[in-house]
Amino acid sequence: MAFMPTSNAPAPAAYTDLEARFRRLNALAEAQGMLHWDMSAMMPQGGHGARAEQLAELSAFHHTLLTAPETGDGIAQAEKAANGLDDWQRANLREMRRKFDKATALSEDLVTRLSRASTACEAKWREARARNDFKSVLPLAEDLLTIVREQAQVKAEASGLALYDALLDDYEPGARAAEIDPVFAEVEAFLPDFLGTVLDRQAAEPPTLMPAGPFPEDKQKALGQMLMERLGFDFDFGRLDVSLHPFCGGVPDDVRITTRYDETDFTSALMGVLHETGHALYERGLPKDWRGQPVGQSLGMSIHESQSLLIEMQVCRSPAFLKFAGPLMRDAFGGDAGDPAWSVDNLCRLYTRVERGFVRVDADEVTYPAHVILRYGLEKAMIEGRMEIRDLPDAWNAGLERLLGVTPPTDTLGCLQDIHWYDGAWGYFPTYTLGAMTAAQLYAAAREQMPDLEDQIAAGDFRGLMAWLRANVHGRGASVDGATLVKTATGKPLDPKVFENHLKSRYLPARNG
Amino acid sequence: MAFMPTSNAPAPAAYTDLEARFRRLNALAEAQGMLHWDMSAMMPQGGHGARAEQLAELSAFHHTLLTAPETGDGIAQAEKAANGLDDWQRANLREMRRKFDKATALSEDLVTRLSRASTACEAKWREARARNDFKSVLPLAEDLLTIVREQAQVKAEASGLALYDALLDDYEPGARAAEIDPVFAEVEAFLPDFLGTVLDRQAAEPPTLMPAGPFPEDKQKALGQMLMERLGFDFDFGRLDVSLHPFCGGVPDDVRITTRYDETDFTSALMGVLHETGHALYERGLPKDWRGQPVGQSLGMSIHESQSLLIEMQVCRSPAFLKFAGPLMRDAFGGDAGDPAWSVDNLCRLYTRVERGFVRVDADEVTYPAHVILRYGLEKAMIEGRMEIRDLPDAWNAGLERLLGVTPPTDTLGCLQDIHWYDGAWGYFPTYTLGAMTAAQLYAAAREQMPDLEDQIAAGDFRGLMAWLRANVHGRGASVDGATLVKTATGKPLDPKVFENHLKSRYLPARNG
Repeated sequence: MAFMPTSNAPAPAAYTDLEARFRRLNALAEAQGMLHWDMSAMMPQGGHGARAEQLAELSAFHHTLLTAPETGDGIAQAEKAANGLDDWQRANLREMRRKFDKATALSEDLVTRLSRASTACEAKWREARARNDFKSVLPLAEDLLTIVREQAQVKAEASGLALYDALLDDYEPGARAAEIDPVFAEVEAFLPDFLGTVLDRQAAEPPTLMPAGPFPEDKQKALGQMLMERLGFDFDFGRLDVSLHPFCGGVPDDVRITTRYDETDFTSALMGVLHETGHALYERGLPKDWRGQPVGQSLGMSIHESQSLLIEMQVCRSPAFLKFAGPLMRDAFGGDAGDPAWSVDNLCRLYTRVERGFVRVDADEVTYPAHVILRYGLEKAMIEGRMEIRDLPDAWNAGLERLLGVTPPTDTLGCLQDIHWYDGAWGYFPTYTLGAMTAAQLYAAAREQMPDLEDQIAAGDFRGLMAWLRANVHGRGASVDGATLVKTATGKPLDPKVFENHLKSRYLPARNG
Repeated sequence: MAFMPTSNAPAPAAYTDLEARFRRLNALAEAQGMLHWDMSAMMPQGGHGARAEQLAELSAFHHTLLTAPETGDGIAQAEKAANGLDDWQRANLREMRRKFDKATALSEDLVTRLSRASTACEAKWREARARNDFKSVLPLAEDLLTIVREQAQVKAEASGLALYDALLDDYEPGARAAEIDPVFAEVEAFLPDFLGTVLDRQAAEPPTLMPAGPFPEDKQKALGQMLMERLGFDFDFGRLDVSLHPFCGGVPDDVRITTRYDETDFTSALMGVLHETGHALYERGLPKDWRGQPVGQSLGMSIHESQSLLIEMQVCRSPAFLKFAGPLMRDAFGGDAGDPAWSVDNLCRLYTRVERGFVRVDADEVTYPAHVILRYGLEKAMIEGRMEIRDLPDAWNAGLERLLGVTPPTDTLGCLQDIHWYDGAWGYFPTYTLGAMTAAQLYAAAREQMPDLEDQIAAGDFRGLMAWLRANVHGRGASVDGATLVKTATGKPLDPKVFENHLKSRYLPARNG
């Protein structure tokens, strides 16, 4: 008969020692996170040299402590005593094992070479992108890809995963190309015709109107903060600041989000703030009892992105939300209630405009998956050695033409637009679209379970939605993997049809007359 | 014949290994410094718990690395090979030894007890001060003093210093009570009569006028930033922000100073900014070639305070500076050129008002030394066991009456006003007045060596002053001790008469008619 632990039984010492060790590791990682935030949001130019040394040192301490033989021995001992652990402790131990195995899989030599090659290639890429000169970055990109392939090989051998999966797993633990392929194939089949229909429909509508500015930065900020608070963000536990590239940083009890303002157009910064607020609410909602432990942390990139996209795409670009928030926007900038540009209908159309474009970060939610599917196919082919990076510009342009019906006029607007590959981040791209699909499926489930959810949102009441997210996503931490979380919360595995249905109902609604 | 190193000779390996180790230690200390700045200037309330863990962890890593046997062995080896080092390297090695010896002098048990007793006493002190209830903090203050005495004993035994000196040396390396006693005795003999004469003189003058506000925070900030830049502060290497208690933090290439604004009175925040700018310019001017090494760091508290007080007291409260800056202040707030409150003469009198007061942090430069001399005598007596802390309120009040001729009406305005003792910082107080005297002596030397210095300042040109400070103070780092620095820069040891002469010429100037 197996030993049945109760909540009162003390956990084995090997395990509790590990909790102490991972609490230290977490504090080091958090310190790095705060210094990264400062670097982006506060630090003057001259601070870069000193900051780089600080971060490198913290990173070295973290790596040394994580990969110490005592960490591995402790995990092995705790695993032997695992029947003395409860479910969360067991999940915590599993996460510890995962972090330890990942950190020890690569030799220090490989980590150093990868880091050096990434730094060199990234710097050259900035020039190449500015000058539309792919050839100038090609040699360093080839060097980097060679090391990335070596990294994939080593990780694949250590984990038993396929080459691409071994990289993908770092960004979305448990995700596998074999599961992504049919999902993306479905979307790819659906998208071109759908996009054409949506664009035809939009062309037949009256033009969207941009409310007249200027929109002073302090007023944009005040509006953003007000909507953040309405959604449930507590400024006793976080901040909103400015940085060149908006992001969500900090730690669960001190979440720092950033945006950048354009005083001629408030719409983009505002939706950016709401997007980052989705990330922030996830971090804030992580299980309090497991602060500082691996199981208390957020899941991979696609679940994290699902939380920002659920807030931005599912909630905040919806007619229900804009019915509530539109008048607040208008009042924030002293707009005229009779001005058709401030009508809820116009704001809805502003926030759901669809366009065939070249640039992923500017894409709307209909065309975004095409950008991701393009990159996913290309990076998989390159990692698996089926394609060389010198062939990238042609393959990129052909792919975008096939998926979106447009060809970038320059590599700057094509295969040079994203930093990821040139900075060594391979296997990341699919998480964006997996996140968008997960967001659609979670939100559909929430609406099913709370039939008046849209009425609540239209009334500016987000407590129901937050409670649902806390229970079904945030509060689960890393106690289950992303696929299990989706299945438990929505009753089924990730299903691209739910995402498609969302797009259909938003972009091709049944006409009233 | 001794080996004569040239700049081309490689330093011994034991020494260069130590440089690498202390560079890592410095990066860790800098990371802590940045997180402390963030805690004061940026962090929301809810972040305290996580931040405390981050700082504790960094502090533990720092202590472990500094006190590792390899550090001590490396220092001992490098000391044996010290004739292969140049002067700066030798000074660097001496600073390494000092840091190592200090860090290893106390057992972990004593450090922990001291830290716990300080935290507990400090928290109780906040309540006691708010409620004017000295008795409520007395038991914890007695516990803390017992441990502080134990600390002094252990440090004295390790260093061969007297009890009080063993504590003082942490704040001002090389400073000794035997040298402070006659200096403070001289000031104490000078002060009471001088103060009476100054107050009589002020009473006979027309009343000072406060320029009419309000003074919006953004305008105060812009004015402060402009004057900081004029003094030589480069915003590519630092920031100005807001915190409850103004301070100078950050790192030499990224100096962060803070202030707090009062929209009804700009004078205090502005002078606070200029004071912190003095600290900041010192940090910025530390020798670039020795960044990250102990010898590249600033000297003790009295030299640091001398740099803030040189800028604030010697320069910025002088008629020459106010001749330059007064019109800029007036313009910043849209003041009327005909308004007598904005006249340079009135601003000079505003910025040199003298009052018998109870509170050190509100004191002017004439009465400030009395506050410090009081605390110095009391803390020395308590450390040496000649007085118990239960007798503090009476001793305090009697001392202030003797030194300043006033008796605090409450302990809140008396022996409960400062955090230092209740937070475990014993031996710190004299550095304030040593700093003020050092500032006066350095500035007198600078004026002697640059006879037109005041004309330069009146013209808003601070390049001469900065060059002098760079050469004589900032750029020397910790290559010599504070006493040597003063002697080299001014031609003689610290001389209280120079400070007295400064006070006489500012507060009792020869009358024109």
